[in-house]
Amino acid sequence: MSQAGETGTLFVISAPSGAGKTSLVAEMLRADQKLGVSVSHTTRPMREGEKDGFNYHFVSRGEFETMIGRGDFLEHADVFGNYYGTSQVWVREMLARGQDVILEIDWQGAGQVRHLIPECVSIFIVPPSPEILRDRLVGRGTDAPEVVKRRLSEAREECRHVAEFDYLVVNDHFREALADLLAIVRSQRLQIVIQQTRHQRLLSGLSDVNNNPA
Amino acid sequence: MSQAGETGTLFVISAPSGAGKTSLVAEMLRADQKLGVSVSHTTRPMREGEKDGFNYHFVSRGEFETMIGRGDFLEHADVFGNYYGTSQVWVREMLARGQDVILEIDWQGAGQVRHLIPECVSIFIVPPSPEILRDRLVGRGTDAPEVVKRRLSEAREECRHVAEFDYLVVNDHFREALADLLAIVRSQRLQIVIQQTRHQRLLSGLSDVNNNPA
Repeated sequence: MSQAGETGTLFVISAPSGAGKTSLVAEMLRADQKLGVSVSHTTRPMREGEKDGFNYHFVSRGEFETMIGRGDFLEHADVFGNYYGTSQVWVREMLARGQDVILEIDWQGAGQVRHLIPECVSIFIVPPSPEILRDRLVGRGTDAPEVVKRRLSEAREECRHVAEFDYLVVNDHFREALADLLAIVRSQRLQIVIQQTRHQRLLSGLSDVNNNPA
Repeated sequence: MSQAGETGTLFVISAPSGAGKTSLVAEMLRADQKLGVSVSHTTRPMREGEKDGFNYHFVSRGEFETMIGRGDFLEHADVFGNYYGTSQVWVREMLARGQDVILEIDWQGAGQVRHLIPECVSIFIVPPSPEILRDRLVGRGTDAPEVVKRRLSEAREECRHVAEFDYLVVNDHFREALADLLAIVRSQRLQIVIQQTRHQRLLSGLSDVNNNPA
């Protein structure tokens, strides 16, 4: 699909946990073959069933810190003693090839990315009610009260940053929310600056159409 | 659907004749019940099969000029001796009610509307090749050469203003072009400023979610 000079769009997707972001992004990738997702680097231990380079790029703290020093990351965070980060090199390479890329990150990461790639498009996903969010985060009551409290406070904090995003999707019905996300991606590709590059020859031909029979 | 404070979006759609704009807009209106289309005022005579208030509001030159004098029009033009115009009162009333409105007008009208309603979203539709455009405008060879020449020159002129629009849709396959247009409308409704008004209560509830059991 990509032509010379055509660059992809970076979609930054954030949400409080419990909003359904991960399932929605997985479906977006299935529905739209032109979308890619960035695989993060992390220093947390690999869990059973996870694959290096697929779920995450698993690296040591030393490697991660060298990468930070080199400015390799578009965004990174230390979450409870584990580093998580998005490779800037990989993302910029995909965009330069005309590939659209999704990043699933929190509001703080989104802020870092906006600073480095201001033309990114950021989307915030929320559940349909505070009650549903709370129920999902409280869970089955088997978690320690401090854990639940922390989750709720993180979700609140995340939701307070909604105004920094370009779009808001309410995940009330999964199919509708998915269609919303796909519409945002599709419409982005139709923006005049992107289309002028993609259809340069067509547009100059149309501005020059004459009445000589073919 | 509309809530207090929620305003609709004005979609301005332009295209050279022969791009398929009218059929596409007709399908958009069928596919999306929340879209309305503005009915223009004109001084040209009613043709057989046309209905006043449906195809156009048919008015006399005197009435039209009074309306111009009152500043009633969002845009108007004198096309070969006949006036055509879009009522500003009607459009603003629809938008204030939260209704999305489509205007099918040419690049000059689009410019006038952008000046009065800068938050409008403008879309340009083109045929997939200059050859197809020329063939459609040349027609079956039954029209006078001057008529064909004028059509071609108008189409060229129209296409030279593509950069003034927000989006470009190439009408290669009708279904795809329709899906493009509907995605632009859908994504517009998801923009943060619009969604913050629509989901004000939800968002304040989410920023305040607590850990008291329900």
